[in-house]
Amino acid sequence: MREAYHVELEQLAVKLAEMSGQVATAMELATESLLNTDLALAEQVITDDVKVDDARSACEEQAYALLALQAPVATDLRAVLAAIHAAESLERMGDLALHVAKAARRRHPDPVLPDQVREYFARMGTIAVRLARQAEEVIKSKDVDAALALEADDDEVDDIHKHLFTVLMDREWPYGVAAAVDVTLLGRFYERFADHAVSVARRMVFVVTGKMPGYGTSDEV
Amino acid sequence: MREAYHVELEQLAVKLAEMSGQVATAMELATESLLNTDLALAEQVITDDVKVDDARSACEEQAYALLALQAPVATDLRAVLAAIHAAESLERMGDLALHVAKAARRRHPDPVLPDQVREYFARMGTIAVRLARQAEEVIKSKDVDAALALEADDDEVDDIHKHLFTVLMDREWPYGVAAAVDVTLLGRFYERFADHAVSVARRMVFVVTGKMPGYGTSDEV
Repeated sequence: MREAYHVELEQLAVKLAEMSGQVATAMELATESLLNTDLALAEQVITDDVKVDDARSACEEQAYALLALQAPVATDLRAVLAAIHAAESLERMGDLALHVAKAARRRHPDPVLPDQVREYFARMGTIAVRLARQAEEVIKSKDVDAALALEADDDEVDDIHKHLFTVLMDREWPYGVAAAVDVTLLGRFYERFADHAVSVARRMVFVVTGKMPGYGTSDEV
Repeated sequence: MREAYHVELEQLAVKLAEMSGQVATAMELATESLLNTDLALAEQVITDDVKVDDARSACEEQAYALLALQAPVATDLRAVLAAIHAAESLERMGDLALHVAKAARRRHPDPVLPDQVREYFARMGTIAVRLARQAEEVIKSKDVDAALALEADDDEVDDIHKHLFTVLMDREWPYGVAAAVDVTLLGRFYERFADHAVSVARRMVFVVTGKMPGYGTSDEV
């Protein structure tokens, strides 16, 4: 029975890793739609979000079945609970990519971003996608060092996010309030996406070590 | 043993209900500090947030112990998993109240909110606190009708939140970009707080009925 359990747990990890790949792709396309005012890409992200929601339901159901039928303890129990938490974070990451795509669609054919902040979002998008891909790898490898390595990338997103406020608050901001509102929300979406990726990786550390590298969330505004 | 299990599960529900009360109070004080530029209240919310984080750790540890030692199935399993999810949402609600308090502190002694939007935040604050108190009751009572009743209040917060954008985007908005950024973020904090309260209540419905009244989150921007 324990053998069957580990096979099922491994299947669950595969599903979670796939989900991580899905949200990485969603954020990649959403960022491209944002930067290039590409309506078709935005629509694709919006349409595909339901797949992430379905994947989350499937992961959660499988985790419940594992708990009910196999009654795991110790590391096995931690692994399945981490999977439940990770599925929740990954679904949320999908929602945040969806929000980015919706912003691109809402303003189309106008660009959402003034030129002055475009590069910041290109950079945040690159790192956000990388974080989701790293989370995917960590789910597969359970590599604690790789999991902890996500923190540095998350810090860079936080730094850019903070810097955006400086840009927005500058008396010289010439793009008006509507653009400032969009930039404020979009900045927060990327920052939260990165936070959740780190949270997924942290849960995997918990699976391996039994200790969380810090509770709570790191978002600051 | 099943009897002991139910006693422990009830203790966990009591802790969760307390946590819900804590975050209701945090949001109440944070809103007051925001509306009345009250620095002492803001500081109190900021200091007290660690108690919410600790409560979440305690809930999660107790839930893990229940799973490991008692291996519950069916409704009992759903109840303990709902508790883990609820603890996560409640901690997040505490974070959001903390963000409101930090905004009040950051601008002190200036008010964060222009007079034109003050009433919207007073109303969102009232409903947000009520939602957290209703979640507390639902955790205690497991009353499905009471849980579903939260949705209407959440809809009102969503409506106010959307209306705020109309106010911000108006060409006549005379308060500048910095105020618009603050209002944008604060509006989102209240909207997310309300969403999480609904999510806690939904999890309790799941405990009773075995079905979630809809996956995912309802936040729209």
